[in-house]
Amino acid sequence: MIISMSEQATEQEIDHVIQRIEECGFQAHVVRGTERTIIGAVGSGERRSELMALRAAPGVADIVPIAHPFKLVGRQIKQGQTIVNVRGVPIGGPDIVMIAGPCSVESRDQLLETARAVRAAGATMLRGGAYKPRTSPYDFQGLGLEALELLREAREETGLPIVTEVMSEADVDTVAEYADMLQVGARNMQNYALLRRIATTKHPVLLKRSPAATVKEWLLAAEYLLAGGNPNVVLCERGIKTFVTEMRNTLDLAAVALAKELSHLPVIVDPSHGTGRRSLIPAASRAAVAIGADGLIVEVHPCPERALSDGEQSLDFAGFAQLTASLSEPVRKLAVVTSEVAMSTT
Amino acid sequence: MIISMSEQATEQEIDHVIQRIEECGFQAHVVRGTERTIIGAVGSGERRSELMALRAAPGVADIVPIAHPFKLVGRQIKQGQTIVNVRGVPIGGPDIVMIAGPCSVESRDQLLETARAVRAAGATMLRGGAYKPRTSPYDFQGLGLEALELLREAREETGLPIVTEVMSEADVDTVAEYADMLQVGARNMQNYALLRRIATTKHPVLLKRSPAATVKEWLLAAEYLLAGGNPNVVLCERGIKTFVTEMRNTLDLAAVALAKELSHLPVIVDPSHGTGRRSLIPAASRAAVAIGADGLIVEVHPCPERALSDGEQSLDFAGFAQLTASLSEPVRKLAVVTSEVAMSTT
Amino acid sequence: MIISMSEQATEQEIDHVIQRIEECGFQAHVVRGTERTIIGAVGSGERRSELMALRAAPGVADIVPIAHPFKLVGRQIKQGQTIVNVRGVPIGGPDIVMIAGPCSVESRDQLLETARAVRAAGATMLRGGAYKPRTSPYDFQGLGLEALELLREAREETGLPIVTEVMSEADVDTVAEYADMLQVGARNMQNYALLRRIATTKHPVLLKRSPAATVKEWLLAAEYLLAGGNPNVVLCERGIKTFVTEMRNTLDLAAVALAKELSHLPVIVDPSHGTGRRSLIPAASRAAVAIGADGLIVEVHPCPERALSDGEQSLDFAGFAQLTASLSEPVRKLAVVTSEVAMSTT
Amino acid sequence: MIISMSEQATEQEIDHVIQRIEECGFQAHVVRGTERTIIGAVGSGERRSELMALRAAPGVADIVPIAHPFKLVGRQIKQGQTIVNVRGVPIGGPDIVMIAGPCSVESRDQLLETARAVRAAGATMLRGGAYKPRTSPYDFQGLGLEALELLREAREETGLPIVTEVMSEADVDTVAEYADMLQVGARNMQNYALLRRIATTKHPVLLKRSPAATVKEWLLAAEYLLAGGNPNVVLCERGIKTFVTEMRNTLDLAAVALAKELSHLPVIVDPSHGTGRRSLIPAASRAAVAIGADGLIVEVHPCPERALSDGEQSLDFAGFAQLTASLSEPVRKLAVVTSEVAMSTT
Repeated sequence: MIISMSEQATEQEIDHVIQRIEECGFQAHVVRGTERTIIGAVGSGERRSELMALRAAPGVADIVPIAHPFKLVGRQIKQGQTIVNVRGVPIGGPDIVMIAGPCSVESRDQLLETARAVRAAGATMLRGGAYKPRTSPYDFQGLGLEALELLREAREETGLPIVTEVMSEADVDTVAEYADMLQVGARNMQNYALLRRIATTKHPVLLKRSPAATVKEWLLAAEYLLAGGNPNVVLCERGIKTFVTEMRNTLDLAAVALAKELSHLPVIVDPSHGTGRRSLIPAASRAAVAIGADGLIVEVHPCPERALSDGEQSLDFAGFAQLTASLSEPVRKLAVVTSEVAMSTT
Repeated sequence: MIISMSEQATEQEIDHVIQRIEECGFQAHVVRGTERTIIGAVGSGERRSELMALRAAPGVADIVPIAHPFKLVGRQIKQGQTIVNVRGVPIGGPDIVMIAGPCSVESRDQLLETARAVRAAGATMLRGGAYKPRTSPYDFQGLGLEALELLREAREETGLPIVTEVMSEADVDTVAEYADMLQVGARNMQNYALLRRIATTKHPVLLKRSPAATVKEWLLAAEYLLAGGNPNVVLCERGIKTFVTEMRNTLDLAAVALAKELSHLPVIVDPSHGTGRRSLIPAASRAAVAIGADGLIVEVHPCPERALSDGEQSLDFAGFAQLTASLSEPVRKLAVVTSEVAMSTT
Repeated sequence: MIISMSEQATEQEIDHVIQRIEECGFQAHVVRGTERTIIGAVGSGERRSELMALRAAPGVADIVPIAHPFKLVGRQIKQGQTIVNVRGVPIGGPDIVMIAGPCSVESRDQLLETARAVRAAGATMLRGGAYKPRTSPYDFQGLGLEALELLREAREETGLPIVTEVMSEADVDTVAEYADMLQVGARNMQNYALLRRIATTKHPVLLKRSPAATVKEWLLAAEYLLAGGNPNVVLCERGIKTFVTEMRNTLDLAAVALAKELSHLPVIVDPSHGTGRRSLIPAASRAAVAIGADGLIVEVHPCPERALSDGEQSLDFAGFAQLTASLSEPVRKLAVVTSEVAMSTT
Repeated sequence: MIISMSEQATEQEIDHVIQRIEECGFQAHVVRGTERTIIGAVGSGERRSELMALRAAPGVADIVPIAHPFKLVGRQIKQGQTIVNVRGVPIGGPDIVMIAGPCSVESRDQLLETARAVRAAGATMLRGGAYKPRTSPYDFQGLGLEALELLREAREETGLPIVTEVMSEADVDTVAEYADMLQVGARNMQNYALLRRIATTKHPVLLKRSPAATVKEWLLAAEYLLAGGNPNVVLCERGIKTFVTEMRNTLDLAAVALAKELSHLPVIVDPSHGTGRRSLIPAASRAAVAIGADGLIVEVHPCPERALSDGEQSLDFAGFAQLTASLSEPVRKLAVVTSEVAMSTT
C-alpha cells in the first residue's frame, strides 16, 4: 500500500502516518520526492483495511492499494483453468457450452417445445426462469415452483441440465433440489446474504455481472462464493449500464478476456441481455466466442412476440438454429494480398 | 403505448399488430405517416406487458410506452407530500432531518460518544451499521447483533431514533425489533425478495438508490414496498456510478428534485457516499438542502483515520458541528447592482 | 413525431398543440387514451425541429421522434455496402483491412522500421500521428510537418497508404497533401467546423467515435461529412467512457454490428484505445472481426516501453505478427456431442 | 511516480526498470514488499512522460502518477481566487453572476426583448448563440454574423456584456470583435487547435466541461488556455453523460466544489443543459449557488415552445424573474428542536 502525502504535509504528519502503519503491524518505507513524500506500507495481515482509513489522516493526499484483492479466484493461486461440471456438461474446457431456453417458463408446452428445439439445434444446457426479478411489481413474476417442476420434466425428457435463477435465500434449498445450476441474477450480484447462503451448497453457480460492477467487483462477488466453500462458479457477462441508449446494455466483451486473464474461473456471455436486440445476437455471440468466452446463454422462445418477458431479445427456433450453425462458419479473412495491392498503388 | 412500424412494414404485418393489440384487450389507432405507420394501443389492463413483446413481431421498429409505470408512489395518486414518522421524527415535513453516526458500529464507546456528539450538534436521528455489505469478503463485516444492542442503548441514552441496514431476509424481524427505521442498501435496491419481506412489516424504510438505477427504477423499487403494504418509505440519493474517477460516486442532486416532482415520498441525500471525499461533504449538504431534499444522512466518527470502514468520507465531531451550523448560513447573494455595473461599462 | 400530452392536459392545450403542428406544415392525428391523449404529427419538411420545441408547450408531457434522423448515412437510402478506396486498398469489401503503426511518429528510424515490420506481417495500411491531441499541454504534441514527410517516405518505400489525424481546420489542406486518409480523432468527432472543412476535400476520412457518443450521434457526425459532399467515410469504434476502471475505455463491439445494421458505411475497430491493455488486443481484435468489423487499426511500436505515447497499449513487432497470424485461426468449437453428453447424465 | 512490479517480476526486470528511471533523469527508490516490489521514481523534468511508457516494460504491473498534473490552474500555484472581469462584471468575486438569454439568436425582436427582460429581472450578462453546434446537420445552425451584430446592439441598449460560442478557429477574431467573452462549447472542450487559437487573444473565456470529461481533464483543458497565455478562464459545469435517461445530462454539482478546491479559477453552472427539464432549473440553480458556484448561465426565451433550439429547457420571462427572486429566499431550516422531539419519544 502506498500512502501519498500532500505537498503541504508536515514532518509531524508524516511521523504520525509511519506510527500508524507500524501499529497495524506493517513496515513503513519513506520515499521523499521533490514535490511530496510517499510512504510504502509493506507486510500483510488482517489490519490492512485499517490502513485504508489513513486517507482521513491529516496530511494524507491519497492511498493506492498495491496488493491483489483476490485470494481464491485469482491467477496467483491457480494458473490453470477451472472446469465446472454441470451434471456431466463441462464449462471451461476446450468446447464452448451453449445454454438456451426461454426467459420465463410460461407453460408446459412452451418449455418442452423449446427444450426439444434447442437441443436439436445443439444446445447443451437449458435455461428458464421460475422466479423473475422484474423492475415493476406489476410485471409477470414467474410461475415459481410450478416452473421448477416443468424444468425437471424437460430435463428428464431431453437430458439437458437446467439452470434457473434463485432470488431469495429462502428458496435456495428448493431451487437446488430441482436445478443443476443456480443462477445469481445481475441485480443480486452484491446480495451478500444470498451469496453466503448459496456458498453453503456445493451446487454449480452462474454468477451474472451486475450492470454497475467493475471487473474487480465482479470477481470479488465470486470470491464470496469461493470463500464460503463453493468453488463451482461460472461468471457471466451480460452488459453494463452506460449512456448508450440504442441497446439495452453495453456488452463489455473485453471484460471477458480480462476476467479470464485475472481469474481461473470460466466465463460465459449473455448476448440477449447484453444487446437487448434480437438482430445483434448472432454477431455478438460470434464475437463472444472469438474473445475467449467458454459459452453462451441465449434466450429462445417459440413465439417471441408473445413472450411474457424479454420477447424483443429472444430468438425463435429457426433463429437459434442459424446461430449455432453460424458459430462454426469462418470469419472474414485478413487481406493477404497486401503486397500486390500495395505495389499497384506506388 | 405507441407501436412504430418500420418503413418496410407490409400491410399484413400492420394488420397482425392490430390483431394482437385487440386480442390483449386494447384498441388500436392507426396513424399513417409519410415514412412509416404508427399504431397507438389505447386502453388498460393486465395484458399491457404482453404488448411489449410486440417488439419482436415482424415489421415492428420500436415500442414507446406512454403511461406512467407507477401506481402508488406517483403524483397522479397523491398530490401532497408523504410524511414518514420515525419514532416521533417526521421526515418530509417543513424541517429537514439530520441523520448522523458512524458507518459501522465498532464499539460501545465509539457509538455512544458519537451519538452524544451528533445530538449535541443538532442531529435528529442516529445511523450505524450492524451488518455491513462489503465488496470484499475479507473486509470487516459488522458486529451484527452486538451492534443492534449498542444502537438500542444509544437510543435509550440520547433519545435519537435509529436507522440501520438490513441485508438478509432472515434478519428482517430481528433488525426491526431494534431499529426504528430499516435501511435497504444501494446494492440491494433491486433485491426484490428483501423488499417484499420488508413490506410485510410496517416499519419505516430508508431505500437507497442503486448506483446503477435510473429515477424510474428507483421509484419502482419503492413501488414494491408500497404495493406490498408498507407506505412508510423514504428515498435516499447516494450517488451513481459514472466515468468520473475523482469522486467515489457522482451525486445526482437533480434526481432529488425530479423524484420529488414525480413522487410524494420524502427524499434525503447521503453526501458521504455521494462524494466519498470529506472535504466536499459540507458544500454537497448545503446543495442538497437547497435543491429540496428532506434531510441528510452523514457519516460521523470520533477518529475517522481509525474507522474500520469509510474513514475517508466521515466527518469528525468538530466537522459535523460546523456542517450543521453552516446549513443555516445564507448563501452568496445574486449581484443586485446590475444596472450600475452595466451602466459603467457602456 | 408523437406528442404525448400530460394526464392533466386541457382541451385548450390539446387544441393549441394541434394548431402549432398544422402551422408547421404537418398533419395532426389525435389518439385519445384512457389516461392521456397522444397526437401524431405526420408529414415532412424543414420545420420538423420547430415541433421539438412543443416540449415546452403547456400540457405536453413528452415528445418522441419517430422518423430516422439520417438522410445519407442510413440504410433507407442505400441497402448495399459502401466501399471506401484508399489509394487502392478497399475498406468495406470482403477482406478486412489491417491498419498498423506507431501512435506517434517519433523519428525516421522508428517509423520506417515499423512500416517494414507491419507490412511484412500483413498490414495493408500505415498509421502514425503527426499532430497529437494530448490531454495535457505538457505532453509530447507530435512532430507535425516533419512527421508528415516521414510518413510520405514510408509510403514510398513500403507502398502502404497512410492515415494520420488532422486536428485543425488550418492543417486540412497540408495533411491532405501528404496523407491518403484523414483521421478525425475521438475528441473532435463533434468539431463541426473541422468536419465541414474536411467535407470539402474528397479525401477518405476515418471518423473515430467520441467516447461519449451514442451510435446515433456518431452516425450524425458522419452525416455532416456526407451532407458536406464527402462520401468516403469509414467509421471507427475505439471505446466509450464508462464507470469501468480496469480498462482505458469500454470497447463497444455490439455498436459495430448496430452501426452496420443502420448504415452502409464501413466500420473498423481500434482495439488499442478500446482496451488500453496490450494483453487484451489480440482477443479484442478477433472479436472485432467476428462481429463484422471491416478492419482494425492497431498501435505498433519497435519498443513500446520507450514510446512517447501509448506505450502500454502498443504491440511490438513480434506481438503484431502473432496477432495477424491468429486472426485466421479457428475459434473454439461449439460442443457438438450434445446428445451423448446429455444422455450419459440422465 | 510509483512503478508497481508484478508478483512474478524477476530481478533482471526490476533492474531494467531502475535503469530506465535513471536514464530519464530520475532517482529510483526500491521498496520490496512481501508480495511484490514497488519502485518510486523521484525527481522532475520533461522526461516524466517517458516513464509512463514503462507500463509496457516486462514485469511491470501498474504505474501510478503521484504529482499533480496542473501547473497553472492548480491551487499549488495560487491559493486565492481568480476574478475574471468581463467588461466590468467580475466573475469569481463575492457576488454570483447571472448570465441569461436565448439558446440561439433568432431575430432582432426575440433578442432585444429577451435582453431587456433578463436585465430587468437581475441578469448581469447576456448569452445568445450565433454559431450553433448541432448534433444533426439538418438542424438550425445559427444566424452567424447577423447574430453577432444583434448581440452588439443588445449590449449597446442594455449595457449587458455578451458571451457567445465560437466553434471555428477561423471565427475567433470575428467573434472576439463582437463578444465580451468567448464560449468554448462542451463538444469542443478538447479541440486543442481551437483552445490554442483562443489562448492567443486575451479575451475572457467560458470553458464548458465536456460531457465525457473528468474533473482533471476539464482542468487540463483550461491549462491549455493558461499555458497559451490567456489567464481569463471561467469554468462551466453543464452536466455529464450517464446512464440516466430522465434528464438530458447528469448535473455534477459536487464537481463544482471539487474544481474550486483544486483550482483558483471561477466556476459557473448551466442548469438548462445540466438538467434539460425546465421544471428542474430553479431548484438546480439554488443548489449550484449553495455548493459554491460563482454564477449561473440560464436559457431564457420569450416563447420557449417556439424556440428554434432547446425550447424544452428554456425559461420564459416570468419563470426567469421567479428564479432570480428565489435565489435570495432562505432554504428550509434544519430541525432545531432536536432535544424536545427526541425526548418525547423515549
